[in-house]
Amino acid sequence: MFSQRIMQLKPYTPGEQPQDKKYIKLNTNENPYPPSPMVEKAIREFDVATLKLYPDPESNKLKQAIADFYGKKRENIFVGNGSDEILALAFYAFFDRNNGTLLYPYPSYSFYPVYCNFFNIEKKEIQTRPDFSIDIEDFLAEPNPSGLIFPNPNAPTAMGLAKPKIIELLERFPSDRVVIIDEAYVDFCDLGADDLIDRFENLLIIKTFSKSRSLAGMRLGYAIGSKKLISALNTAKNSFNSYPVDRIAEVAGVAAMNDKAYFQETNQKICKTRDYLANWLNSNGWEALESSANFIFARKPGISGQEIYQRLKDEGILVRYFNLDRINDFVRITIGTDAEIQALIDRLTDFK
Amino acid sequence: MFSQRIMQLKPYTPGEQPQDKKYIKLNTNENPYPPSPMVEKAIREFDVATLKLYPDPESNKLKQAIADFYGKKRENIFVGNGSDEILALAFYAFFDRNNGTLLYPYPSYSFYPVYCNFFNIEKKEIQTRPDFSIDIEDFLAEPNPSGLIFPNPNAPTAMGLAKPKIIELLERFPSDRVVIIDEAYVDFCDLGADDLIDRFENLLIIKTFSKSRSLAGMRLGYAIGSKKLISALNTAKNSFNSYPVDRIAEVAGVAAMNDKAYFQETNQKICKTRDYLANWLNSNGWEALESSANFIFARKPGISGQEIYQRLKDEGILVRYFNLDRINDFVRITIGTDAEIQALIDRLTDFK
Repeated sequence: MFSQRIMQLKPYTPGEQPQDKKYIKLNTNENPYPPSPMVEKAIREFDVATLKLYPDPESNKLKQAIADFYGKKRENIFVGNGSDEILALAFYAFFDRNNGTLLYPYPSYSFYPVYCNFFNIEKKEIQTRPDFSIDIEDFLAEPNPSGLIFPNPNAPTAMGLAKPKIIELLERFPSDRVVIIDEAYVDFCDLGADDLIDRFENLLIIKTFSKSRSLAGMRLGYAIGSKKLISALNTAKNSFNSYPVDRIAEVAGVAAMNDKAYFQETNQKICKTRDYLANWLNSNGWEALESSANFIFARKPGISGQEIYQRLKDEGILVRYFNLDRINDFVRITIGTDAEIQALIDRLTDFK
Repeated sequence: MFSQRIMQLKPYTPGEQPQDKKYIKLNTNENPYPPSPMVEKAIREFDVATLKLYPDPESNKLKQAIADFYGKKRENIFVGNGSDEILALAFYAFFDRNNGTLLYPYPSYSFYPVYCNFFNIEKKEIQTRPDFSIDIEDFLAEPNPSGLIFPNPNAPTAMGLAKPKIIELLERFPSDRVVIIDEAYVDFCDLGADDLIDRFENLLIIKTFSKSRSLAGMRLGYAIGSKKLISALNTAKNSFNSYPVDRIAEVAGVAAMNDKAYFQETNQKICKTRDYLANWLNSNGWEALESSANFIFARKPGISGQEIYQRLKDEGILVRYFNLDRINDFVRITIGTDAEIQALIDRLTDFK
């Protein structure tokens, strides 16, 4: 009754979204602050009667707001129902076993192998160094890439790849193979590579409103790239779902993009809380990898990630652990408000 | 730079969504009435601060509201970002050239061949009869189907297939091949087949909030089927995008599903206006196919569909025509309000 494709899928498992008990929720890298007051205003003033009409299939107002923010043209912007949807369409459009092997680091975002299975793409995971850093030489040593994708900062390690290394990678990587930088967390550091899209036609940047713009519940993502790449993404989208962004999501996205002051203020607060927590952890017997994101990847020698997760859950705090090679003694801790992080520290103080 | 897949795509072209001039818009089968007042209330009362959190990836509250409406279990319901997205995932999950050839009628929804190209599915269009009716014998005569999909009522003809014929088709079609009935327009007649899902495990019904619930701008669709089919759709969804339905769409969908009185009242109004227009057309030198939907497919001997479309557009009314085999002398007219349809009739009165 089923296609052969579906028989071999291993779907992605998102982090817990408990619908019942109230937790301090530090497990899915959401923003602890609400969306901009301008988003609230846009939704309050939205004319609900217009929902009877389809949205603009091109989401041109949203694309324009994003283009303005980054100093790009609208033709350099693609939008979708969350950055996961954009990643899926990009895997479809750019990576193909007939062209070689897709490269991505390990550990990294665990949705990448899922997309490869979904679209039958040949893949190779490139191990990060023992300290979990990415070394571009390890990508460049591979003989026949169909493309490359990596998050910057990487997930779940939170570690960033420096801008000069990104430029060197793009200069030396085959110019007829697409390089995707998944910048879901880039607004919590200064490693954004969107300024490079004019120089490298094969570079696609994928970003999201879910983290730095507090809109995980609205499902909005975007991509920045050359006209050629964006045009291919449009072809894929229009063969799958013509109208992925609804009317309310579009006005919310425009408002979030326009409120630069709120965006900067909340992100700076999160970075400050992050640095405070990292400092506390490293001074109290934990090992926290250097974070450029809104989360920290940390371990305490002698305790497994699962045990830390379970003990914190029992005390009302959700973090995430991954029962995977090399990282099963870590937990990933999302940066919450100062009060939430203080509550976490209080629990961790007597952790043995 | 691109995958081989994307090189051969021919994307779907949705109907015009003019962003500038004000038209009487009878071209994309939207509902002329606003969503239920309960939808307005749900959106007005929505707590915007919660948008910082991901939605429930399972959309369980929405599934429950749909299950309650149809007297089903939640495990029989799937939801997505518009019924187009659900169609795409269903094509992926159920149809495969290794299992044979997918059948669908011609003319029909022009997104079906697009999905086939997108997922490399072998297809065969089965011509409707000269009067555009579907004859189930034409499907049953095909030797090696991988599955079958047809809209009921069909689009763009608006013609319905009678319930006894649907039952006979399901009884005689291979029980290990999926049959999808695309019921986007079924709420404007009484041909719904959702009561058959317990009897036929291979039957999937796909429906939308866009037409009969006035929520085209919100992007919400759903499917009803056996636990086995719904489970396969979940696997596909969780390999593509874990959270297709945003938080506001979910509460809007629940409210729309719960307001049965408004749903019935607006649909009855539309059916009444439709029957009035059909009667006028058939009494004034036009030929309108018998409609079970919220639109009418009609022609006037001696004028091409494109000419009718252009002359009406010049006068401020948008309808849709299709430059396709057998139907290029028709236009598809969405049922508007009584005033909009009267304005159309006024223009058509002196059509030569």
